[in-house]
Amino acid sequence: MQIGILGSGLMGGKLGTLFARAGHEVVFSYSHSPRKLERLAAEAGSGASVGTPAEAVRQADAVLLAVHWSRVGDVLRRAGKLPGKVVLSCSLPMNRRDTELVVGRTSSGAERLARRIPRARLVAAFNTVPSEVLFDVFAARRRARRPSLVYCGDNAEAKRTAARLIREVGFEPVDAGPLKVARYAEPFALLVAQLAYEGKGGPELAYRFERFGG
Amino acid sequence: MQIGILGSGLMGGKLGTLFARAGHEVVFSYSHSPRKLERLAAEAGSGASVGTPAEAVRQADAVLLAVHWSRVGDVLRRAGKLPGKVVLSCSLPMNRRDTELVVGRTSSGAERLARRIPRARLVAAFNTVPSEVLFDVFAARRRARRPSLVYCGDNAEAKRTAARLIREVGFEPVDAGPLKVARYAEPFALLVAQLAYEGKGGPELAYRFERFGG
Repeated sequence: MQIGILGSGLMGGKLGTLFARAGHEVVFSYSHSPRKLERLAAEAGSGASVGTPAEAVRQADAVLLAVHWSRVGDVLRRAGKLPGKVVLSCSLPMNRRDTELVVGRTSSGAERLARRIPRARLVAAFNTVPSEVLFDVFAARRRARRPSLVYCGDNAEAKRTAARLIREVGFEPVDAGPLKVARYAEPFALLVAQLAYEGKGGPELAYRFERFGG
Repeated sequence: MQIGILGSGLMGGKLGTLFARAGHEVVFSYSHSPRKLERLAAEAGSGASVGTPAEAVRQADAVLLAVHWSRVGDVLRRAGKLPGKVVLSCSLPMNRRDTELVVGRTSSGAERLARRIPRARLVAAFNTVPSEVLFDVFAARRRARRPSLVYCGDNAEAKRTAARLIREVGFEPVDAGPLKVARYAEPFALLVAQLAYEGKGGPELAYRFERFGG
């Protein structure tokens, strides 16, 4: 395939390099530094080249949109029309300081709940896997690679209690940080539900976070 | 520990059972059916019993809140004060029909982008893992259990292209459904980012969805 890369930063640069190594013809475009584009293309190998956004798009079978959300309007103007083009976007709708989603939520069920029970010590947990998988995970708790279960909260002792219980029912507890991370964990729970109930296979779905490198 | 279960439905019933099997004293409460509570307690073993929400909470070292969001107010009124109590909540802020978050988002960056490029065929992909992990995953692409990468979109052919590229760079593509699932996948990306950049270990983080049972 011919693949046009719009935005050659961390994601676009690396993915374009991998696409080129997989044998595709890749055109890197849209960086503040033309020199960086040239270096990316040189390092990615013979299938890679440099162009303007319009050139990257013109012959492309697939276009990777990998710019910061604040640059989407600009790069699309430069790229021109995209009739029928397959566009893969990894641009998240973040504000300019990259601190939060601009198309987004400003609270969570967990934070609202915490305001209702201010004297309790709240941990949001157990809401990111379907109930159908619980007994299966418990039955498999001796195996080396346990599924993860994220939890979040603002009280350290309460979080230790949560982590202990999570471990006892067969998961590996993953501390996701303060309670406000529920703004991300709650939609994640719906993503898991979508995969569990609408995806292929039964609803017995769990997930595992894995670190590489290091 | 003594653990009070507020809401003995799918999640509360199963988790309470597992907590009891792990050796804790569990009090099941708050079901429309007293008979169901009795059966849960009987099946969970000698550490389990039945009570009112207030009884479930009174001696509890930890309280599991596992009711539908629409019942939170009612069960909290019945439970009484929770001073210093460790409360684990798995209640998601869903509407009564369980179709969407009530504390929530009604669009996504991907959907907004799709309206800007209506003639293109958009797939949201590659935005749920940090760029730092890409080369590691590619290097490990021969191993049996690849990390997952979710993608979503409304055009089948564009999604096949996305899945192919995802596979070529070392991930297992996971079709998360239509483009509007980006409402969940984008916050999930921020959850991953939170774990990658704020959690223990380096940012080379990936995830894998796994089915059990079946």
